[in-house]
Amino acid sequence: MNEIKRIAIIGAGRVANQLGAALQNAGIEIAGIYGRDAQEAQQLSKKLHTNIITDLSKKINADLILIAITDDAIADVARQLSEHTKALVAHTSGAVSMKVIPDYLRRGVFYPLQSFSLDKKVLWENVPFCLEAENDDDLNAMGALAELLSRKVHILSSEQRKCLHLAAVFANNFANLMFEFSEELLQKAEIDRSILHPLILETANKVLMQTAAESQTGPASRGDLETIKSHQKLLGEDNNFRKIYDLLTREIYNRNHDNQL
Amino acid sequence: MNEIKRIAIIGAGRVANQLGAALQNAGIEIAGIYGRDAQEAQQLSKKLHTNIITDLSKKINADLILIAITDDAIADVARQLSEHTKALVAHTSGAVSMKVIPDYLRRGVFYPLQSFSLDKKVLWENVPFCLEAENDDDLNAMGALAELLSRKVHILSSEQRKCLHLAAVFANNFANLMFEFSEELLQKAEIDRSILHPLILETANKVLMQTAAESQTGPASRGDLETIKSHQKLLGEDNNFRKIYDLLTREIYNRNHDNQL
Repeated sequence: MNEIKRIAIIGAGRVANQLGAALQNAGIEIAGIYGRDAQEAQQLSKKLHTNIITDLSKKINADLILIAITDDAIADVARQLSEHTKALVAHTSGAVSMKVIPDYLRRGVFYPLQSFSLDKKVLWENVPFCLEAENDDDLNAMGALAELLSRKVHILSSEQRKCLHLAAVFANNFANLMFEFSEELLQKAEIDRSILHPLILETANKVLMQTAAESQTGPASRGDLETIKSHQKLLGEDNNFRKIYDLLTREIYNRNHDNQL
Repeated sequence: MNEIKRIAIIGAGRVANQLGAALQNAGIEIAGIYGRDAQEAQQLSKKLHTNIITDLSKKINADLILIAITDDAIADVARQLSEHTKALVAHTSGAVSMKVIPDYLRRGVFYPLQSFSLDKKVLWENVPFCLEAENDDDLNAMGALAELLSRKVHILSSEQRKCLHLAAVFANNFANLMFEFSEELLQKAEIDRSILHPLILETANKVLMQTAAESQTGPASRGDLETIKSHQKLLGEDNNFRKIYDLLTREIYNRNHDNQL
């Protein structure tokens, strides 16, 4: 079995920072950092006490080259790696196929499913890692690496990972947009936004215990058209807020009633 | 100051059940239960070891009559109370004005902001109570009552409460719909829904620390049009899923970019 002991990191943003530090803490050697933004790369290499990699086309002495950069730059950066590269080359993206890495490289995906901040402490043991590789050796090696950090390691195909990433957009970005709307409504009414925090936590905790369909409550799910009308009046006409309210209300209503709105 | 020691409860659903039990545990006497559904009322009166109220137009011996029923039935039920009623009459709804209670009654609102299940244990000390009354004595009396259960007691006008209720629909029902969509996507991809639970918890916890606008991440907020296109392809054309994806994506994009999608 291949063992991953030395990792080179391409990228110096949130994922590179958080994952680099966590893997180093777990005993992995960081062989070097490459970053397009020289200052960011400098900072991360300092933080991890390692070297800057300046030329991707030269030999990189590592077991794994981890590409942790924005999705649309992955293909381009991977192509810059020498075709003689022996290391496994894996990106950390949820949305990008493994196949954007050229097939003359040993390729894989090492995707931590979490929304990272630059500083906020990550509870790694709960972060699901989604892995993909073209052969079992590489899969096992990445599995052992992920298990240094997390109790939740999954093997997913590129297609499955794409669905998961879209699901994560709904569960994270879109749910967060709903929180954003609610904060704006509270601000208009001069109510402190913290008043909704217990409900937000309860909303999240509830879907850990039962499905979201089972968790649904509120005027649309119980068909309370009067309350819906009064909400619509409050929102006014012809604005995005209102459009979104109407579309989501209709969706919830139709999921819970035989007659359709 | 009026003190509330005896409460009659109108309603036998989730709020009546949870609030009735909690107030009784806190030392409040439950004077009786009225419910349109005879079986539900019977069950709750048994659970709370109290009487059934059969006729609302007769004198009810209580300091507070709590109307905990569906929004559109509140006005109707309140009108059935005798005009000689001395007790404070308060409903527990977020969306309904205090004024649906006739003005010959002493009226108020006692609204616990939480999504209740029939059985799930409620952590009352974190539940915000939103109170409204026409005089300070009643407000203070309900304040003291709410403080038996919770550390978070707010005084809000009917208008403020209406905004808060709409905000809660976004933060709870609509966020939950996003979780529902994500579970359906995972099911299609044959991935266990628990894979998203850490991200859902992190999404909720993040907005307790910073605003939702500050918390936003993902393809739309960073303007990653390629990923958006690949999501759209995955969702297909002409379905509600896709419509909602497009509308919410555009909203997030436009909030985070000068050029508008």
